[in-house]
Amino acid sequence: METTQIQASRAINQAVEKAMQLDVNANISILDSFGHLKSFLRMDNAYLGSIDVAMGKAKTAMLFRMNSEAVGEFLNPENKTYGLVNTSGGLVGFKGGMPIKSQGSIVGYIGVSGGSPDQDFEIASAGSNI
Amino acid sequence: METTQIQASRAINQAVEKAMQLDVNANISILDSFGHLKSFLRMDNAYLGSIDVAMGKAKTAMLFRMNSEAVGEFLNPENKTYGLVNTSGGLVGFKGGMPIKSQGSIVGYIGVSGGSPDQDFEIASAGSNI
Amino acid sequence: METTQIQASRAINQAVEKAMQLDVNANISILDSFGHLKSFLRMDNAYLGSIDVAMGKAKTAMLFRMNSEAVGEFLNPENKTYGLVNTSGGLVGFKGGMPIKSQGSIVGYIGVSGGSPDQDFEIASAGSNI
Amino acid sequence: METTQIQASRAINQAVEKAMQLDVNANISILDSFGHLKSFLRMDNAYLGSIDVAMGKAKTAMLFRMNSEAVGEFLNPENKTYGLVNTSGGLVGFKGGMPIKSQGSIVGYIGVSGGSPDQDFEIASAGSNI
Repeated sequence: METTQIQASRAINQAVEKAMQLDVNANISILDSFGHLKSFLRMDNAYLGSIDVAMGKAKTAMLFRMNSEAVGEFLNPENKTYGLVNTSGGLVGFKGGMPIKSQGSIVGYIGVSGGSPDQDFEIASAGSNI
Repeated sequence: METTQIQASRAINQAVEKAMQLDVNANISILDSFGHLKSFLRMDNAYLGSIDVAMGKAKTAMLFRMNSEAVGEFLNPENKTYGLVNTSGGLVGFKGGMPIKSQGSIVGYIGVSGGSPDQDFEIASAGSNI
Repeated sequence: METTQIQASRAINQAVEKAMQLDVNANISILDSFGHLKSFLRMDNAYLGSIDVAMGKAKTAMLFRMNSEAVGEFLNPENKTYGLVNTSGGLVGFKGGMPIKSQGSIVGYIGVSGGSPDQDFEIASAGSNI
Repeated sequence: METTQIQASRAINQAVEKAMQLDVNANISILDSFGHLKSFLRMDNAYLGSIDVAMGKAKTAMLFRMNSEAVGEFLNPENKTYGLVNTSGGLVGFKGGMPIKSQGSIVGYIGVSGGSPDQDFEIASAGSNI
């Protein structure tokens, strides 16, 4: 599904609001349902290294239509899924990426990086229901 | 050996039939004996992230002329084969990739992704004997 | 839009039929509307170098929702669009890539390579109306 | 210089307003003075292929601290600057990328793609003075 500008803007604004509450400087990436970049914001003082982490979490969630940390379970070395983490240009399998839903349907994906995984999860969650 | 169109078609059809029996939406990649893409099919609703995984499993099987999970044994960190997983553009060392044989000879390679490793193995196996 | 297996199969079969009429060994790539690989076939004796050309033509058509040769007009050095040809991982701007339509709507993209540009165009056209 | 969130938001909003006046569906990329992505917006129905073009124009402007079409003059084959177009991961040397200035100082770079080069230039210009 094509994420609309209005949906992307709403998702980013909701995520920023939560990030400010948590005092986190976040990178927030919004992909449409098929993985093309729709919108992006790097909050002031957010880590530069987190730009690509935010992108990677959103991409990972999109590729498997589930939260990035759920994909991460398949990447656990105990599962011996050698090399899986490097597929599709590199997966990022921890908290902060998830589907964006509107009225129950997936309309895109959000990826957040800048705080702890739990904070990133909370920020992404705030932007994931629009 | 050059996989023929007829062989590739047979391998994919047999794999799809098994995937439908298992209720798995699979990506199926067929390479010729030298690793060049011969045919590919993404079944409806298959994960987009599994496209590259299917390709990677077939490539990995081709590069070492054995099942992808057999290559995976060499990738186990206990073997201290540092960096091996990243060679040849990235190996994928778990179940789902294997040689395709016709009358006992290798005529190509199949890689499957979309279900569990065991399901992918079963689907690939169904397409590996043509 | 998600290209279905049935649509992809119809597009490839129609393209193969035309390729056989023209005595061309073609590579045929089918992408969904957002650029993810849906299906691929390399006909027997088709050039290996044409695998990526077919993929590139389909991708180029998808990225700009028009025929690959129409994108090619923007790539003409006379237009001084320096570097445009290298964007999105490389565009391929000559005949052989185009939208696939079903009942007037775009349902995916086809890219063909193996013959002359005019032959590739004819083969892709045969698969573009399903 | 670090582009601020407020500056990036102002640049994008001014560019979007102009794009709507021109009836262009644009991709708008904002980089800080050092080339790191600060913000991005893909307007509804904008070409997917223009995502990377917008990114490339902004990067090109940033790398040489001048408009992308000014860099393009160095890329003209008449200058025999062989290979220059491929440096830094690929330059994009036509209209649509330029510095963003605030009170006469460069505070970042904007890249726009989606319309004709002249339209992209006009849209980028609207976002370049904040």
